[in-house]
Amino acid sequence: MIKTDKILLGHGSGGKLSHELIHELFRKHFRNDFLDMQTDSAVLPLDSELVSFTTDSFVVDPIFFPGGDIGKLAICGTVNDLAVSGAVPRFISAGFIIEEGFSLDELERIVISMATEASKAGVIIVTGDTKVVNRGKCDKIFINTSGIGMLNRRNRLIGTGSEIRQGDKILINGPIGDHGMAVLAARKELGIQSEILSDCASLNGLIGKIMAISEEIKFMRDPTRGGLATVLAELAAGKNFGLMIDESQVPVNSKVRAFCEILGFDPLYVANEGKVVIVADGSAAARILDMMKNHPLGKESRIIGEVTGEYPGKAWIKTGIGGKRILDMLAGEQLPRIC
Amino acid sequence: MIKTDKILLGHGSGGKLSHELIHELFRKHFRNDFLDMQTDSAVLPLDSELVSFTTDSFVVDPIFFPGGDIGKLAICGTVNDLAVSGAVPRFISAGFIIEEGFSLDELERIVISMATEASKAGVIIVTGDTKVVNRGKCDKIFINTSGIGMLNRRNRLIGTGSEIRQGDKILINGPIGDHGMAVLAARKELGIQSEILSDCASLNGLIGKIMAISEEIKFMRDPTRGGLATVLAELAAGKNFGLMIDESQVPVNSKVRAFCEILGFDPLYVANEGKVVIVADGSAAARILDMMKNHPLGKESRIIGEVTGEYPGKAWIKTGIGGKRILDMLAGEQLPRIC
Repeated sequence: MIKTDKILLGHGSGGKLSHELIHELFRKHFRNDFLDMQTDSAVLPLDSELVSFTTDSFVVDPIFFPGGDIGKLAICGTVNDLAVSGAVPRFISAGFIIEEGFSLDELERIVISMATEASKAGVIIVTGDTKVVNRGKCDKIFINTSGIGMLNRRNRLIGTGSEIRQGDKILINGPIGDHGMAVLAARKELGIQSEILSDCASLNGLIGKIMAISEEIKFMRDPTRGGLATVLAELAAGKNFGLMIDESQVPVNSKVRAFCEILGFDPLYVANEGKVVIVADGSAAARILDMMKNHPLGKESRIIGEVTGEYPGKAWIKTGIGGKRILDMLAGEQLPRIC
Repeated sequence: MIKTDKILLGHGSGGKLSHELIHELFRKHFRNDFLDMQTDSAVLPLDSELVSFTTDSFVVDPIFFPGGDIGKLAICGTVNDLAVSGAVPRFISAGFIIEEGFSLDELERIVISMATEASKAGVIIVTGDTKVVNRGKCDKIFINTSGIGMLNRRNRLIGTGSEIRQGDKILINGPIGDHGMAVLAARKELGIQSEILSDCASLNGLIGKIMAISEEIKFMRDPTRGGLATVLAELAAGKNFGLMIDESQVPVNSKVRAFCEILGFDPLYVANEGKVVIVADGSAAARILDMMKNHPLGKESRIIGEVTGEYPGKAWIKTGIGGKRILDMLAGEQLPRIC
C-alpha cells in the first residue's frame, strides 16, 4: 500500500518504496505479460527482423492542458515517430524523472492517461524506470518514451525522402498549430482563456490505412517542434527539388490564427502533435486524400503543395497575395517546453 | 558552426539550432550509418527475433565523478541491464534533457565519454532527442538511454530466476559499494577528499565470456540502486528458497568500508555500476569463478553465498561473529541521485 500522497526521494531509491510504486501504480495500470515478468529488461518476441527504434523526452509545461497531458503526449509522440517511419508501433518504454513532493494523484492521472492512449494506439508499455530528484531540481515530471515498431522491406526508406521527385504532392491531415497554441494558452502566467484543444493523437491508425492502399507514399513526418515549415525546410535541404506550399490551402483553425496574430507567432512554425505531412506521387494524391478524409483524424486533410523544380534545396510558400517566400528552419525558440 | 559556449533554449526548439547541435556534436561523435540516415527513427536490421528492451534515466549528481561521468554511466547502465538479461547489447537511444545555460564544452565531454564507452562495449547510439528547459527547471543535464539486445531462446529466462534451486551458489565479480561512495565523496558540499573510484563499467564482455562456457547460470542482476542486499531480497521474495550470503566472503574495499562506517552506510545497500550478481548451479560455480577471475572486470570475483532451504522467501546474511540477519529491501533513500 502506498501510504503517502506525495512522491518521496525513496520512490526512486530502487528499494522498498520503488517496489511499491512499481507494483501499485505502474504495473496496475500498464498491466501486460512483459511487465509481469518483473525483469529489468523486457523480453520481446518480434515478428520482423527489421525494426524502427526511436526515443523522445517530454518536458511540456503545463503537464495538463486542453486536449491532453504529458502522459498522453509521451505515448502519441513516440507512436507517431514510429508510424511516420513506416513502422507498426508495438513496444514502448517509459522513463520517469519526478520531482520530490510531486502529487501521487497527479502521477496516477498521468499513468492512466498513458495506459489509455497506449491501449487506443495498440502499443504496450513493456519496461520502465523511475528516478526522483530533490525538490527544485526538475519541474514536476519529465517522461522519456522509447519505442520499437515493426518494418517491412518495402517501407524501410519512407523516412528518408530519397525517392521524392518533381510533381509529387504534399498532403497534411488537418489544421496546423493547435498543440502549440493550446499549451501556450494553458500557461497560467498568461491569464488567457481559450477554447483551443491540442491535436495530440496517435496517428498509426490513419497512417496504417493509407499505407495499405498506396505504395506511392515517399515521405512522412510529424511536424512537432519547429512546425510544418521546419519539416519542409529540413527535407528540402541539400536536395535537387523545391518544396512549395500554397498558403491558401494550408488549414489553420480560426482561433489558432487569431491567437497567433495577437502574440506574433507564425502558425507554420507552431508545434503539432496529431499531424502528419505526407509526400506522395502526384498520380496517387487524390486517392490518398480521399482515404485520409474518411478517417476520424483526417477529416480536414488537404493537398497543400507540391515538389517543384523551382528553388531547389528550399521550402517555399506561395502567399495569398501572389508572392513567394522562402521558408527557413525555425531560428531561435518560439515556445520552450511545448512537448 | 556552433557559435555559443552555452546551451540556449533554441537548441531544443527542433529548428536551426537543434539541427546544428545534432550535426556538429551528436553526429560527429556518435558517427554511424543509422544516425547518418537522419530519420526520426532508426531503421535496424536485427539478427534475432527475440530481443531484450530496457530503459534507464540518469540524474547523477555531480555529473563528473572519479571513475566516470553521467555519459559513461548512461551507456554502462543500459548495456548492463541488457547483458544481465542474457542478451547481447546492440543498439542504444539517447534522450537528453539539458538546462538552459549548460556549458557546451561539458556537453561535448559527456558526449565523447558516451561515444568512447559505447565503442568499448560494442554498441552503437542509433537515435536521440534533445530537450532544453529554462534555467532552474532541471539540474544541468539528465540523460535517458534505452537499449535493444539480441537474445536466444536458451537465455530467455535468465532474468527471472525461475530455475533457481537449493544448493545453487551466489557469485559477484568484485568489491561492492565503490560507485555510491565515489559519487557521494565527489559532492562538493561534503568537502571530502577520497581516492575511491566508481566501478562504472560495461559488463557485457565479462558476461558474454561466462555465458559461453556455462549453461548453468540461472540468474544475473546488476546491483545498482539499493545495492546487493536489495537485489537478493527482491529475488528471494515469494520464492520457496532463501538466499544466504556469508559476510566474510563479501568483498568491500577498505576505503569504502571506512567511509561507510564514518557516514553510517551499510555497503550491502550502496549502489554499484560495474558489478553483477550471479546465481549458478553449485556444480558449475568453481568453473564460472575461474573464468570470471581471468577477466579484467572480474579479478576479485568471489562465491559469496548460496541458495538455502532456511528462511524461504528471504535474503539473509551469516555475519562475521556467527549470527544470522535477514536482509530487507532498502527502506527510504540512502543516497538520492546516485545514478
